[in-house]
Amino acid sequence: MKRTVLLFIACAVVATLAAHGQRRGTQKPASESYVAPDAAINRVLDAQVAAWNRGDIDGFMDGYARSAETTFISGDTITRGWQTVLERYKRGYDTREKMGTLQFSELDIRPLASDTARALGRFTLTRPNEEEPFARGRFTLLFRRTVGGWRIIHDHTSAAG
Amino acid sequence: MKRTVLLFIACAVVATLAAHGQRRGTQKPASESYVAPDAAINRVLDAQVAAWNRGDIDGFMDGYARSAETTFISGDTITRGWQTVLERYKRGYDTREKMGTLQFSELDIRPLASDTARALGRFTLTRPNEEEPFARGRFTLLFRRTVGGWRIIHDHTSAAG
Repeated sequence: MKRTVLLFIACAVVATLAAHGQRRGTQKPASESYVAPDAAINRVLDAQVAAWNRGDIDGFMDGYARSAETTFISGDTITRGWQTVLERYKRGYDTREKMGTLQFSELDIRPLASDTARALGRFTLTRPNEEEPFARGRFTLLFRRTVGGWRIIHDHTSAAG
Repeated sequence: MKRTVLLFIACAVVATLAAHGQRRGTQKPASESYVAPDAAINRVLDAQVAAWNRGDIDGFMDGYARSAETTFISGDTITRGWQTVLERYKRGYDTREKMGTLQFSELDIRPLASDTARALGRFTLTRPNEEEPFARGRFTLLFRRTVGGWRIIHDHTSAAG
């Protein structure tokens, strides 16, 4: 009888640990190379800014998920699919001068689920020897953790009115 | 010995069930009155449109989470907190005429997690006897399932340029 009680307790402990492990498992990968979502997302955004500022739109587009589901809203227009978003950027910024210098500020990154986060922020585009940005506005980004890392699956950007 | 093996098997079964219950618990509420997220979100948006079109901004604001964390982006401006968003709407639309008639279209609702979803869509505001909308644009909404139902926690709206 005493042995049964002990085994019952062991059983309860195992069940609790299993349930707990399951719950923790949905929050954090077990990998040693785990990077907190906001740090990983900050890196993606830094890489985007660096790519833009060397005139590399393809590099900038690495921040977006290479998927037909990737969406981009600006003004009253929605663009669907990574390739179409790339073409839109290349059309809108077809010279190095038009691209100007990109800066992000007021970043506010928040996880929505273990593999999903949103980032709010502000952008400015400036030209050399001009103090005032020639374009500025705000963005809402939805990020998904993909096999290749965190990538933007949706971008809603609006410019100052 | 045989009893120990049987107890060990029972233990494994309990642990598996506990882990399984934990996992299911994060996906779907056990409640009988379960409504699919997109149907529930559609209802919230329908209620918002109905409220707006009877001149009821308070009713419209019921669609947003009553939280200091609720955010609203339009153009280059971010507004933080349910109360501040309400005041912004009341200031911007201080007469029934300014409000016009609201319509949502091209709704695209997608769950991001068990308690989170995003809705993309288009809005128009029209006046009686005018065919063309006096305002139109697109929105990205982030919804959270709260104790009171699905509510908007973030709204990014942009108007036609």
